[in-house]
Amino acid sequence: MIAGIRRVAGRSRNPAVVQGIGDDCAVLRVGSGRQLLVTTDLCMENVHFRRDWHSPRSVGHRCLARGLSDIAAMGGQPLACFLSLGLPTDVSQRWINGFMAGLERLARRFRVSLAGGDISSAPAIVADIIVVGQVPSGQAVLRSGARPGDRIYVTGELGASGAVLQRLYSGERVRPGTSKRHFFPEPRVQPGQWLRQRGRVRSMIDVSDGLSVDLLHICEESGVSAVINADAVPVARSASLDLALNSGDDYELLFTAGRGSRIPARIGSLPIHEIGVIQKVSTKPAITMVDARGKSQPLKQGGWQHFRDNRGLGEKE
Amino acid sequence: MIAGIRRVAGRSRNPAVVQGIGDDCAVLRVGSGRQLLVTTDLCMENVHFRRDWHSPRSVGHRCLARGLSDIAAMGGQPLACFLSLGLPTDVSQRWINGFMAGLERLARRFRVSLAGGDISSAPAIVADIIVVGQVPSGQAVLRSGARPGDRIYVTGELGASGAVLQRLYSGERVRPGTSKRHFFPEPRVQPGQWLRQRGRVRSMIDVSDGLSVDLLHICEESGVSAVINADAVPVARSASLDLALNSGDDYELLFTAGRGSRIPARIGSLPIHEIGVIQKVSTKPAITMVDARGKSQPLKQGGWQHFRDNRGLGEKE
Repeated sequence: MIAGIRRVAGRSRNPAVVQGIGDDCAVLRVGSGRQLLVTTDLCMENVHFRRDWHSPRSVGHRCLARGLSDIAAMGGQPLACFLSLGLPTDVSQRWINGFMAGLERLARRFRVSLAGGDISSAPAIVADIIVVGQVPSGQAVLRSGARPGDRIYVTGELGASGAVLQRLYSGERVRPGTSKRHFFPEPRVQPGQWLRQRGRVRSMIDVSDGLSVDLLHICEESGVSAVINADAVPVARSASLDLALNSGDDYELLFTAGRGSRIPARIGSLPIHEIGVIQKVSTKPAITMVDARGKSQPLKQGGWQHFRDNRGLGEKE
Repeated sequence: MIAGIRRVAGRSRNPAVVQGIGDDCAVLRVGSGRQLLVTTDLCMENVHFRRDWHSPRSVGHRCLARGLSDIAAMGGQPLACFLSLGLPTDVSQRWINGFMAGLERLARRFRVSLAGGDISSAPAIVADIIVVGQVPSGQAVLRSGARPGDRIYVTGELGASGAVLQRLYSGERVRPGTSKRHFFPEPRVQPGQWLRQRGRVRSMIDVSDGLSVDLLHICEESGVSAVINADAVPVARSASLDLALNSGDDYELLFTAGRGSRIPARIGSLPIHEIGVIQKVSTKPAITMVDARGKSQPLKQGGWQHFRDNRGLGEKE
């Protein structure tokens, strides 16, 4: 199995990797004038995926996509990934091959090397993915940079992944090919870099827990509040406003930019929607939602999180 | 719990960490003329530790020690660590606090920041530790540098951790305070850096799987064979030669250096033992052991690994 993983590792070589699998550590070269980005994402069977719902290729893809999306949310360039894999004895070689194939395909597309990892037996499948990237020094886009007056934007559409999850929970069989946004989400790596370089965005996060939760992360880290227009939220055709606001796993980019900056209507083929504005905090960071009739109410977090807690789906921290 | 982890993270700040917990990625500054080292170690309950054998402090210490030891084996300087933690519902807050305290204590001693991670529910305790370090460019000590004629050395003594494990398996209760080499192993970070800088060692690995297995890793990656003198192997007082050769978890450094290089008898208080010599390969990389009477035999790997497989202890890859 190790030999199989080494083969995968040999295929998508990023020149930043000086020494990959086969030593105590991987050795990486970071460009001069660059800072390093590191993110870890723990994917647990029956928490982040289910073997009866997700094909092994989808699981491999989704695990790496979560890490790449975190690099995207800093405006960074991914270089290498690491995989710590825990496997129960009932997992077939075929499953492992499918998982590695899903991970490898995405790694190759983004020129990310599988540069190391660890393996153990485990009572359920555990895949911890570490992605290392780089960004020009001092230019990582943090959650803490939002300022009152900033406009709030989100890429793509929201809620499609949650809609699939809802169907899966209801007992429906959903084929991976028909619902790519859930089974094979696209990390927004190039748009993230574009927004850092050309869009001069002030704060950014990826929508992994749901818009209501992730926007609150920006507000809390920046010490600001936010107002969003319900009508402006880009709801996927298969989803409801509730799913668009509260379901996660969309991996779109949520960001803020100063009033003067010119954020285009799309980057390449990816649409960008202005959905609200950052305000000063009155008592504590909070989000207000305004509907089409001008009626405003506090946007609560946790509807979907409760759903997930009850059903055993995980929350990223 | 996240707040508790953030508190731990705030305490042992390494200046390389520009942005720690609280964003999509950690941001790290790598010194100019430095390359980056990354290692991941997956610690699974009932594979790498048992809650009835190991105190939570010991588990936290051992998890991080494995990662620091990998950095040591490259001659590197650790900068930051990341923790992906999977927890079953029956784990108490007290256990988690103990685990974090054990990890934190070691992190502070080596000036390593806890800079990020992830949390999930899990069917058993999972702790994946990622350690990031740095080394002057091109100077990482790899497993692949051994050359025929090199002398083989090992630091400290071997087998003490395995001897404790054997007692635990036999049903004995062993108190952590009395058997620190097993419960609180010391990663050889400063000796590793000394050996790279002043000892000019050619290849290095840490003894995590056992001398017989780890020396074979050096031989295979370097394309060489090895001869070791049974009498020269530093066997811990509590251990046998078999344990010293085949049990793991010692976290001593095993390295080779050219005949001309002057390796001292100790670095600080840590003894160094010359135990053999590197030779050309005849058919494939192999290790020969010579006893006091001059009788030589092939050194087999796997005695202890079999033991571990049978008993459910993990093997590092």
